[in-house]
Amino acid sequence: MSQKIKRLGILTGGGDCPGLNAVIRAVAKTALYRYEIEVVGIMDGYGGVIESRSMILEDHHVSGILHRGGTILGTTNRDNPFRYPVGEKDGQTVWGDVSDKAIANLEKMGVDVLVAVGGDGSLFIGNELYKKGVPVVGIPKTIDNDLSATDVTFGFDTALNTATDAIDKLHTTAESHHRVMILEVMGRDAGWIALHSGTAGGADVILIPEIDFSYEAICQKISARQQKGKKFSIMVVAEGAKLPGGEQIYQEERKDNPHLSKLGGVGNVIGDEIQRRCGVETRVTVLGHLQRGGTPTPFDRILGTRFGVKAAELAMNGEFGQMTCLCSGEIQSVPLSDAVKEQKLIQADSELVRAAKSVGVSFGD
Amino acid sequence: MSQKIKRLGILTGGGDCPGLNAVIRAVAKTALYRYEIEVVGIMDGYGGVIESRSMILEDHHVSGILHRGGTILGTTNRDNPFRYPVGEKDGQTVWGDVSDKAIANLEKMGVDVLVAVGGDGSLFIGNELYKKGVPVVGIPKTIDNDLSATDVTFGFDTALNTATDAIDKLHTTAESHHRVMILEVMGRDAGWIALHSGTAGGADVILIPEIDFSYEAICQKISARQQKGKKFSIMVVAEGAKLPGGEQIYQEERKDNPHLSKLGGVGNVIGDEIQRRCGVETRVTVLGHLQRGGTPTPFDRILGTRFGVKAAELAMNGEFGQMTCLCSGEIQSVPLSDAVKEQKLIQADSELVRAAKSVGVSFGD
Amino acid sequence: MSQKIKRLGILTGGGDCPGLNAVIRAVAKTALYRYEIEVVGIMDGYGGVIESRSMILEDHHVSGILHRGGTILGTTNRDNPFRYPVGEKDGQTVWGDVSDKAIANLEKMGVDVLVAVGGDGSLFIGNELYKKGVPVVGIPKTIDNDLSATDVTFGFDTALNTATDAIDKLHTTAESHHRVMILEVMGRDAGWIALHSGTAGGADVILIPEIDFSYEAICQKISARQQKGKKFSIMVVAEGAKLPGGEQIYQEERKDNPHLSKLGGVGNVIGDEIQRRCGVETRVTVLGHLQRGGTPTPFDRILGTRFGVKAAELAMNGEFGQMTCLCSGEIQSVPLSDAVKEQKLIQADSELVRAAKSVGVSFGD
Amino acid sequence: MSQKIKRLGILTGGGDCPGLNAVIRAVAKTALYRYEIEVVGIMDGYGGVIESRSMILEDHHVSGILHRGGTILGTTNRDNPFRYPVGEKDGQTVWGDVSDKAIANLEKMGVDVLVAVGGDGSLFIGNELYKKGVPVVGIPKTIDNDLSATDVTFGFDTALNTATDAIDKLHTTAESHHRVMILEVMGRDAGWIALHSGTAGGADVILIPEIDFSYEAICQKISARQQKGKKFSIMVVAEGAKLPGGEQIYQEERKDNPHLSKLGGVGNVIGDEIQRRCGVETRVTVLGHLQRGGTPTPFDRILGTRFGVKAAELAMNGEFGQMTCLCSGEIQSVPLSDAVKEQKLIQADSELVRAAKSVGVSFGD
Repeated sequence: MSQKIKRLGILTGGGDCPGLNAVIRAVAKTALYRYEIEVVGIMDGYGGVIESRSMILEDHHVSGILHRGGTILGTTNRDNPFRYPVGEKDGQTVWGDVSDKAIANLEKMGVDVLVAVGGDGSLFIGNELYKKGVPVVGIPKTIDNDLSATDVTFGFDTALNTATDAIDKLHTTAESHHRVMILEVMGRDAGWIALHSGTAGGADVILIPEIDFSYEAICQKISARQQKGKKFSIMVVAEGAKLPGGEQIYQEERKDNPHLSKLGGVGNVIGDEIQRRCGVETRVTVLGHLQRGGTPTPFDRILGTRFGVKAAELAMNGEFGQMTCLCSGEIQSVPLSDAVKEQKLIQADSELVRAAKSVGVSFGD
Repeated sequence: MSQKIKRLGILTGGGDCPGLNAVIRAVAKTALYRYEIEVVGIMDGYGGVIESRSMILEDHHVSGILHRGGTILGTTNRDNPFRYPVGEKDGQTVWGDVSDKAIANLEKMGVDVLVAVGGDGSLFIGNELYKKGVPVVGIPKTIDNDLSATDVTFGFDTALNTATDAIDKLHTTAESHHRVMILEVMGRDAGWIALHSGTAGGADVILIPEIDFSYEAICQKISARQQKGKKFSIMVVAEGAKLPGGEQIYQEERKDNPHLSKLGGVGNVIGDEIQRRCGVETRVTVLGHLQRGGTPTPFDRILGTRFGVKAAELAMNGEFGQMTCLCSGEIQSVPLSDAVKEQKLIQADSELVRAAKSVGVSFGD
Repeated sequence: MSQKIKRLGILTGGGDCPGLNAVIRAVAKTALYRYEIEVVGIMDGYGGVIESRSMILEDHHVSGILHRGGTILGTTNRDNPFRYPVGEKDGQTVWGDVSDKAIANLEKMGVDVLVAVGGDGSLFIGNELYKKGVPVVGIPKTIDNDLSATDVTFGFDTALNTATDAIDKLHTTAESHHRVMILEVMGRDAGWIALHSGTAGGADVILIPEIDFSYEAICQKISARQQKGKKFSIMVVAEGAKLPGGEQIYQEERKDNPHLSKLGGVGNVIGDEIQRRCGVETRVTVLGHLQRGGTPTPFDRILGTRFGVKAAELAMNGEFGQMTCLCSGEIQSVPLSDAVKEQKLIQADSELVRAAKSVGVSFGD
Repeated sequence: MSQKIKRLGILTGGGDCPGLNAVIRAVAKTALYRYEIEVVGIMDGYGGVIESRSMILEDHHVSGILHRGGTILGTTNRDNPFRYPVGEKDGQTVWGDVSDKAIANLEKMGVDVLVAVGGDGSLFIGNELYKKGVPVVGIPKTIDNDLSATDVTFGFDTALNTATDAIDKLHTTAESHHRVMILEVMGRDAGWIALHSGTAGGADVILIPEIDFSYEAICQKISARQQKGKKFSIMVVAEGAKLPGGEQIYQEERKDNPHLSKLGGVGNVIGDEIQRRCGVETRVTVLGHLQRGGTPTPFDRILGTRFGVKAAELAMNGEFGQMTCLCSGEIQSVPLSDAVKEQKLIQADSELVRAAKSVGVSFGD
């Protein structure tokens, strides 16, 4: 198989994530120098496949990008060849399957194997293309760390650093002003960033989607601290934390959100309630897009590099329909279909949750 | 005069600001070792004067705090001895003048001279106390850089670093996703943080309270960039930027704000409108409290130290009613009454604004 | 067993390492609040045991220390109760076994179980004390990442960040001046920091103790780059890299080093030779102690916290003679004697070395 | 005059310095868009003039470089058209004046005005070319902050941040190990980086070329601290600090240094002596090239931008033989000949030295 591969295509899909350039660089350098084949960079995820936008990647394109956030190929979390806007009728978008065109475009580009870097959405599409005969290799990407098929993936460590740095910054203001400071971080279904950054930042309360909380428990924690002379508290709240009653409020980026900025995420709602119930000045900061940006940490650059090299190896060995993963510290591969089988959620009785509780963190339960 | 001074009191008032601990350390070390007098730290700004909460500051209290954000003395932007809640009537707070009690408390603490560190509010109160006979020396503090009596004060450089770092982070996401990314920064009346961080971060549009903007001009800038193949844009917006029509929307911290979190600051309003008018995906991040926190930059630690030493010298030399300042790079002093005479605003034709325009920044005018 | 434990002692030994305070905090908070027992902090490692220097640790001692580098208990990489200077004879130090005195001191302090945090030396001593009947629990600490009994331990990630940040800084100078820039990092027997930081920083050459190098191979790499128009190169060298011929040169901290600063480590020696052989301007930076300092990364704070909680649990469950470890991502424990059985070295054919080679890194082999 | 200028040339000379790219970007954007003329980037300082290496700079060359350290044009601290190696005789380099060729090359490149960015060496050359009729505008660059013609220039603030960060890192190790930690920073004739970073980092001793020190005074300071229970001390030493007796030892980069790495700079010499005399464990870190690298701070990006815009204005207004400067906070210009008239040294009785002493810093005097 591998001797037939003369050109490898690569695309990045889904939300921006630190480490994507490390992946692109590793795939390209491995392909160019170790396997001595050509590399095509496809622009803006599957959008570039559908609209046939690509460029030949040479050494100078992928040199000096290791430490840069973002992706030199561009990305999107929209375009899906299996459900693509093909027209309009009565003011409504008409959706169609343009996957055959996408496959034809890949052939025109001379792409013998496609490395798709993305989250569950992009990997699902990759798997569908694979099922239709396209040689696809996947690389998992999720800043939320909620893919069950890999221990962890690149981007999460950088997001964790940004969130922890924010907590460190809020600490001094909380302490100086005797306030409750709330930081809302990413995590719609899984609270990994909140759990890790809250533990690393010494938060007093961490609220995550996986553990139901009550305001009573939070106020109890805050007043227990006050009784010990600690007049401030730090809370970290995942954007997907469920309000008592079970409601989830996401602040942004939902495709069908009629308003750009749904005003007031879960952090603000909780902050208002805490201030009202506990009678302590409360301030909310929504970290938002800052979590996706910035120079990747060494961990993310290394993991991105390892995934990139592995994906190129899988591609050249003809192991299609596979994606790279980190399993028990080893770089391995699993079927693409595994990527999206189930989300990796936090177990309420897991060791890390228990450790956090052991040093005094309340989860509001 | 100076031979009579046996005990110096110090308080920090107003919002949290990086460099306050450098000031406290410098005042205390200078007093303890150079002048060999005692130092009283008054807790939580003028609140600690009114409620007589203080502590003797010794070497170990002020060692190792130079690099820490916040203030070890606590602060508040509320308590004013000339207008203090003294009771309640018909469900309404009754305000009274408790300045005589405050002055009596200072005497009971044995404070021979008071060093008041704060913004225009705290310095105004300091000047009123001075007019009533209290030996007061002021140190100006404003993260917004809007005091006309000093070239710059500590805290601003740290806030500028935090804001610029945020722009750097947003850049990669903007570029990868072909979006307009908006960062809302502090600055109600003066847009210094926006102007400086926007220039340092390579923003394409900077909106400040001092320069009126139109949506047309912004959209023109964005589409001019698109025509040059730059599919993304970065905007920095001061929280006090005036919407076309002149309205200002502050997001938080207004004392009489009935709701904790007035939902949707100026960044969100502008973001919605840009997305609607220019048809380009737009995302908004409100930096908020992060700007007040964190380890102070070397510049702020040094300036805080210099101000602290100067204030102790003024105190010991009997130069009361004065505040420290940085004028043309020199540490000097001016009357406390000057501190609040006028706000330092950005001139639309100033050299920095023209330099920013020269490298392509649009101010929406 | 656990019901008898009323007081837990903790000490930190060996070189400074980011995350030690996270460990101390986690052990103390777990002991104080979850198990409601007392905690004794022993000063300066085993020195404090021998000389009976300790303090009761209360909540306020361990609050606010999570993000601070170093150890509030002090540390030393010298004092060993089994070989301690007990006098002098003919100008020579006389060494003796003072372990009985040490054990007696622990009893006097009321220490029912001792948590020893340290590297192979400190853990070896801990195991010897355990064999003599002292209830000991260990927590592994090594910035070099060379303990085979744990996947990784705290401190390494922070050192990696510092080293990678240095490489990023050297990159611009290398590129602007067309130079070879060499960074010497820690790692006497194992090159983990060099391998990881070099991979993360995009180094062109990485030299580690585990892989023999030749100057020919390095010069070849440098001139291959020049032929591609890349006039600069970045090299990362572990301090224990073996010169051709097999000699190792350590720059500092060797106990029996007659001179404080053995001038010229391996980085300088290699730099001179590269400049001479390849005729390209070469500059060397020795990162040194900066690698041990600074605010721990979130990863190190979390791992320190998890180890601390686990150690307190082992202590209370009577599982003495054990040390905490991270095995395949899980917090577990192994016998203390395992800690020092063998050093964890880099395998020349390991996946990470191969990945680094795949993106163009030369190991000089 | 200005209507004749159709093409502006720019070069960067001397040592690498954060902010150079901000300058290049500002000059180029101002020239391209405000004055609508062409821009030629000359490679590697005056070397590129002599050897006629240059490139047309377009928008895409100078976009996205604002936050990057180094210089996209390359630099060198060697090539001087007035003293250039023109041959060899008896194994000795023969030097000659190739300035006429350089001027001819500038004409061939079509350069109507040359913006030279550099330190005293590069500006001196610029002035000599100006005297021979070349329209030259200068921009001062010195990481050491020792040019008297400008209050400060870009690069210094970034170097100060790097040095202060290093002190912060060394603090924890010093404290944990009860050591004296010495940091050697740049500054051959002027100790600005040492004075500023030492003050910002809370150093106990600062040694600079401008103030003679004695070992007795240092040991006194260290033991005074020990008596107060502070078992560690932090020292910052400028590389040009004069040993008692007046000797200066520079560690590297001297052109005529026969050995690449003169082993052991002043930090090591002082460290050995302190350890010997005070009997306290002492460790030395030489910060070296790290000070020149890295992402420029916002201050340096802004100052670089302002200088770049001003230089383009000077160039277009025909104000040749001038260089930009920051005087009392204002961007202005002075004759190029002023740039090198005298070095800006620290006055021993200046306000900042006195402030540092007031918070307890010893200068060893």
